[in-house]
Amino acid sequence: MNKDICFLGAGSFGTALSIILAEKGKRVILWDRNHDLINSINSTRENKKYVKGVRLPQSIEASFDLKNTVQNCMYIVLAIPSHVIRDMCKNIRYYLRNDQIIISIAKGIEEETGKRLSEVIKEELPENEVVVISGPSHAEEVANKLPTTVVVSSENMDIARNVQDVFMTDKFRVYTNSDIRGIEIGGAVKNIIALAAGISDGIGYGDNTKAALMTRGISEISRIGVKLGGKKETFSGLTGIGDLIVTCTSMHSRNRRAGILIGKGKSAKEAVEEVGMVVEGIKACRAFYKLKNKLNVQMPITDSLYKVLFEKKDAKQVVYELMTRDKKDEN
Amino acid sequence: MNKDICFLGAGSFGTALSIILAEKGKRVILWDRNHDLINSINSTRENKKYVKGVRLPQSIEASFDLKNTVQNCMYIVLAIPSHVIRDMCKNIRYYLRNDQIIISIAKGIEEETGKRLSEVIKEELPENEVVVISGPSHAEEVANKLPTTVVVSSENMDIARNVQDVFMTDKFRVYTNSDIRGIEIGGAVKNIIALAAGISDGIGYGDNTKAALMTRGISEISRIGVKLGGKKETFSGLTGIGDLIVTCTSMHSRNRRAGILIGKGKSAKEAVEEVGMVVEGIKACRAFYKLKNKLNVQMPITDSLYKVLFEKKDAKQVVYELMTRDKKDEN
Repeated sequence: MNKDICFLGAGSFGTALSIILAEKGKRVILWDRNHDLINSINSTRENKKYVKGVRLPQSIEASFDLKNTVQNCMYIVLAIPSHVIRDMCKNIRYYLRNDQIIISIAKGIEEETGKRLSEVIKEELPENEVVVISGPSHAEEVANKLPTTVVVSSENMDIARNVQDVFMTDKFRVYTNSDIRGIEIGGAVKNIIALAAGISDGIGYGDNTKAALMTRGISEISRIGVKLGGKKETFSGLTGIGDLIVTCTSMHSRNRRAGILIGKGKSAKEAVEEVGMVVEGIKACRAFYKLKNKLNVQMPITDSLYKVLFEKKDAKQVVYELMTRDKKDEN
Repeated sequence: MNKDICFLGAGSFGTALSIILAEKGKRVILWDRNHDLINSINSTRENKKYVKGVRLPQSIEASFDLKNTVQNCMYIVLAIPSHVIRDMCKNIRYYLRNDQIIISIAKGIEEETGKRLSEVIKEELPENEVVVISGPSHAEEVANKLPTTVVVSSENMDIARNVQDVFMTDKFRVYTNSDIRGIEIGGAVKNIIALAAGISDGIGYGDNTKAALMTRGISEISRIGVKLGGKKETFSGLTGIGDLIVTCTSMHSRNRRAGILIGKGKSAKEAVEEVGMVVEGIKACRAFYKLKNKLNVQMPITDSLYKVLFEKKDAKQVVYELMTRDKKDEN
């Protein structure tokens, strides 16, 4: 192995993490299928498309050669949207050895199957260990070394602790937590709540409304998460309420930004086009709408968002109904 | 009783609630000891000092006659900072009948005794029923009829439900919850966390840092709250995480604004002067610092804030220590 770590996908979070790792002395390859992006990164030492204004250390090599990239690295980070993870696993399967570790940093769920991303990876690459990284970590801030905390998890906690050591710095704190189910479900569902919170903002409702929506949101995340085998306390932690807060309140969140546009009257399609990146919450909404019906779990925010996104229901009316649907005792 | 409800204190939240009530047909007296403010409200039909730009309905009467105000109303709302509640109770004691209901909307704790505000009121006015209102409800948004949810609680839940009916509108949703301890503790401690979150913002840290701080903050609230007899689930609700979110993320929060100024290098005293209103978090910090030592409860954010506010410790160093103090497993 010539290089320590590769990132498959030179998007914002992958690039931000590659900077963190390079600055602590790791050798990193940033792979992307977009040749123009790779050439631009190699010639300017900056990812102008996704992480503007941050210089990439020399120890980051940008490449569009997937085979060489994968064969040369001990840790393979899948830094791509949830819907292309299975295909990427199929593509790299023939270059992999069993001792290489796969790391998933996307937050979503496979829409067609309702499977967590680590499950999808395990199905395609059953011989490799899989680790997930999640938590309140907007890429722009990670790249600019603002203090950030994340959590790593795996079915094999020795491997999780190994990955913790690889990524940990004094500005990028990495905790371990063995509840991989809770962590992955929290990361996927919070994008649904962030879309709804963005819609509330876009309508012109205030911080009071959004705080109420987020309070119900964390209950909703916890309800479906526990049903799917997650631990209740995980949803009170960094990958639950922590990530929900950052996603619902920061303008860095593309899910929230898409929601704001929808709240202002745009369609889901127009909002996605304007945001210009994958909006995981829209796909998560479709996936969890199916799952909650199958499992018979109450997810009123997901329900309502589904109606706005796919059944042309008026967003203002839907937020109003969400605000007024509960019975009169809080618990 | 000529009038339904009076507010003792014409600050922002009292004024906002008086508007809500007047618009649903209640007769309201807004009392304040500040004669200029009362005269200005009566002549301009606006509270220019605390709720700019919102017209007060004619059914709100502004008064500086405490005796008449109290004697004429069924519901007496204490809309004053926590440190003057005991004195106000002593002042109104001689005008009160036993069937009048006292409502507390301040969020704090009595610094000298560590008592909850409803306990203080009960000590001074033992014959009257006491109800508290809490939740994510910035006054500016309530006054402008943005959808808001709050919770009422009391030792006597029949009275709480009565107050729920008085205040409820389709834009101001009122829930009941019998856990008065948890509700009052949550409301007081969240101001400590909001100050710390403001400091993090003032230093220039990002949304990732603040989300991590808030995640720890809700654990800290829950830990001391349960120790003081509150129910764990209350801290996951509107008066716990909901109020924490709104206070830590909105510029309407004077606690957060004071924190931002401290994070930028001002002293606590300078920050309070610049905010120009009572900053409950500073008093709450002193009170809970004593309480946590007495009860032997871990409150690392309160500890750290105490050092910044009262022992001149460097805020940046303190936030850094908070971010890095935990052991490496999340739970």
